[in-house]
Amino acid sequence: MATLVELAKKGVVTKEMKFCAEYEKRDVDYIVEGLIKGTIVIPANVFHRERGDFSPRAIGKGLKTKVNVNIGTSGDIESIDLELEKLRVALKYGTDAVMDLSTGKFIDETRKAIVENSPVMVGTVPIYQAAKEAAEKYGFIGKMTVDDIFAAIEKHCRDGVDFITVHCGVTLSSLERLRNEGRIMNIVSRGGALIAEWMVYNEQENPLYTHYDRLLEIAKKYDVTLSLGDGMRPGCIADATDRCQIEELITLGELVDRAREADVQVMVEGPGHVPLDQVEANIVLQKRLCHEAPFYVLGPIVTDIAPGYDHITGAIGGAIAAKAGADFLCYLTPAEHLALPDVEDVRVGVIAARIAGHAADIVKGVPGAIEWDIEMAKAREALDWERQFELAIDPDIAKKYREERKPQEDEKTCTMCGKLCSIKRVEDYLKGK
Amino acid sequence: MATLVELAKKGVVTKEMKFCAEYEKRDVDYIVEGLIKGTIVIPANVFHRERGDFSPRAIGKGLKTKVNVNIGTSGDIESIDLELEKLRVALKYGTDAVMDLSTGKFIDETRKAIVENSPVMVGTVPIYQAAKEAAEKYGFIGKMTVDDIFAAIEKHCRDGVDFITVHCGVTLSSLERLRNEGRIMNIVSRGGALIAEWMVYNEQENPLYTHYDRLLEIAKKYDVTLSLGDGMRPGCIADATDRCQIEELITLGELVDRAREADVQVMVEGPGHVPLDQVEANIVLQKRLCHEAPFYVLGPIVTDIAPGYDHITGAIGGAIAAKAGADFLCYLTPAEHLALPDVEDVRVGVIAARIAGHAADIVKGVPGAIEWDIEMAKAREALDWERQFELAIDPDIAKKYREERKPQEDEKTCTMCGKLCSIKRVEDYLKGK
Repeated sequence: MATLVELAKKGVVTKEMKFCAEYEKRDVDYIVEGLIKGTIVIPANVFHRERGDFSPRAIGKGLKTKVNVNIGTSGDIESIDLELEKLRVALKYGTDAVMDLSTGKFIDETRKAIVENSPVMVGTVPIYQAAKEAAEKYGFIGKMTVDDIFAAIEKHCRDGVDFITVHCGVTLSSLERLRNEGRIMNIVSRGGALIAEWMVYNEQENPLYTHYDRLLEIAKKYDVTLSLGDGMRPGCIADATDRCQIEELITLGELVDRAREADVQVMVEGPGHVPLDQVEANIVLQKRLCHEAPFYVLGPIVTDIAPGYDHITGAIGGAIAAKAGADFLCYLTPAEHLALPDVEDVRVGVIAARIAGHAADIVKGVPGAIEWDIEMAKAREALDWERQFELAIDPDIAKKYREERKPQEDEKTCTMCGKLCSIKRVEDYLKGK
Repeated sequence: MATLVELAKKGVVTKEMKFCAEYEKRDVDYIVEGLIKGTIVIPANVFHRERGDFSPRAIGKGLKTKVNVNIGTSGDIESIDLELEKLRVALKYGTDAVMDLSTGKFIDETRKAIVENSPVMVGTVPIYQAAKEAAEKYGFIGKMTVDDIFAAIEKHCRDGVDFITVHCGVTLSSLERLRNEGRIMNIVSRGGALIAEWMVYNEQENPLYTHYDRLLEIAKKYDVTLSLGDGMRPGCIADATDRCQIEELITLGELVDRAREADVQVMVEGPGHVPLDQVEANIVLQKRLCHEAPFYVLGPIVTDIAPGYDHITGAIGGAIAAKAGADFLCYLTPAEHLALPDVEDVRVGVIAARIAGHAADIVKGVPGAIEWDIEMAKAREALDWERQFELAIDPDIAKKYREERKPQEDEKTCTMCGKLCSIKRVEDYLKGK
């Protein structure tokens, strides 16, 4: 089956392209041109996109900022049902994508269940499974073979996954830079650490880098979008934007070109922990070094000192990043740095990331963005509470607050101001009622 | 008694100035010079500052970003005990200031109890009480006399309040601009709306503007800091930074000069609802138009569509504002736009505002800011959980997450990654353990 990029180049407009154009309130030509240039991707595995309710999203230049929700089991918390419940909540609260990062006992079963139940794109990090199974099979991750890695990758693609994170840019040269850099934290990317472990043990170059063409072949076969992982992303504010991180980004930029030449869709992942004054620079650099490939960032979080609140530190960085051009925000939950998120963490995380993306979309001129705020403003000015709930990004929470603390003084107002409500008073005298 | 500014000008270094200098890790001369220039204020009522445990804060240029917590009863929720509990929680979670915005039955008693129980500065908005009592006394706010307004102001000052919000810039000219502007929402500042109501009814100029010298006299007598309120602040993103708002800001700038001439400490309040790309401009404008008077912002929130999450929309805007030079952030809670905050809302609100301020302090080079993050990074790299809790902005929440989901696989790691923990693995192989 042809990839969406191949089809776009042949002038074929598919249902996915039309669906995305309609969703974005954009002309379909804009989507098609972006696909051809590589400034836009539509992650849509040939198998996943055949399902009737598949709801693809285009990610990239000029489009609504998208959000991703990470779910998946861990060695400590291994219930598939729990992950499906997280998926349900993530979808209810408007995620554009989910990544299954399972590392528990039933990795295959969990992934299949998530792909089967997800109308939105699904991503995975195949190296997690390869490494876990290698540790079980050989007693040590370093003994994992190149074929083990590619077998895991192909299995994920065959299962209908729409994008995969591959840490192709962790090279011997970047490991050398890491040693010289003097970071406080070395590698905090799980996939990056696993690849590095393999490289150190085997004294060999990263197989995802040396066998990149093999990776492109698999990706092309299933039209899986490559998400080039940033294994060298900073794990704390003080390590941000260092030589190690940026050298990897240069490598990722070169790999973007090669993916595009092969008609494989590709995006690039970014940090991580970044101080406020370096967020914009990180986006500008990525856009330039990676020739405008869609940029997928994790947060970024703007301080390290707030475990329990990283949905907030991430929303701050995410809003600034998205305003500067980041296209895809990976959510962070309150559980980040502490534990595997639960269902409630997922809800809070997806809303926080959507707030960040939307705040940026307003100023990026994304069609429909400011209009949403204007409708809310009108509902507030009219003291129309039902309409405010309808428009709220999370109607359940908004209603809950109001229901719990209903005003007695004047039901049109709220318990904060009561009779002294400015909107109510101005309505009475300034408008001459 | 002399004001701190008068004393500073005479070369007297008071215990408040020393306390603030130590707190800021700054030379006391820096604080003294800032007080003289008016780029720094230390709100400290002559009565409040006499208490033994008074913990003043300097607000302004080059200093740690401060946060304020709004508490106080409303017509619907009138328990003094509840407000004292909010005060206790606000203090526990590190607020630098509280404002008592009470409009319930026992305004005097609530204010006195809050001042009595607060070692940090307390602010109020006297016009709330004046208007509420006028409505009760005369049946209509418009019949409130100028003496009623000033009696309320003096009463608050006599009770030991450290700063008062006074909406002096709502003038007949700004009301005219409001009518011409075509805003979606007119006035959303409660104090601004009350003053405007009085002006419309009486067809007279704002008495806080015409009798500004009387206000300065009272403020000077008690060394109360004036916080010049922005009655014309935008109530939605679409209304931000309009002619009406900026004209008021120009007026406030002129009133800053007059306060400084009278040796009265003064700061300026700002918005409100501001889109991401106008936040910095708002700060630059204020700093220039108000000759670098300390800037106290409410949020700003960067989208209107997230009731229930305005601590997050406010943290995004607050971080950007503080980075651009805002000195003092008024918190927002999840209850904003919906109800009076409860105790839990206060906790979440103060932490969110502190995160925003700290993220900015890191890049503003505030002494001690990045060092905090570096300590946390080291604790993370060492997988030292106890130290991480100690350093967390909210140790209770961080511990709670970890306790609830304790790892079984490997107690040094967490339930997100377990054995695949990047930090653990890198420690094992890259550092050669």
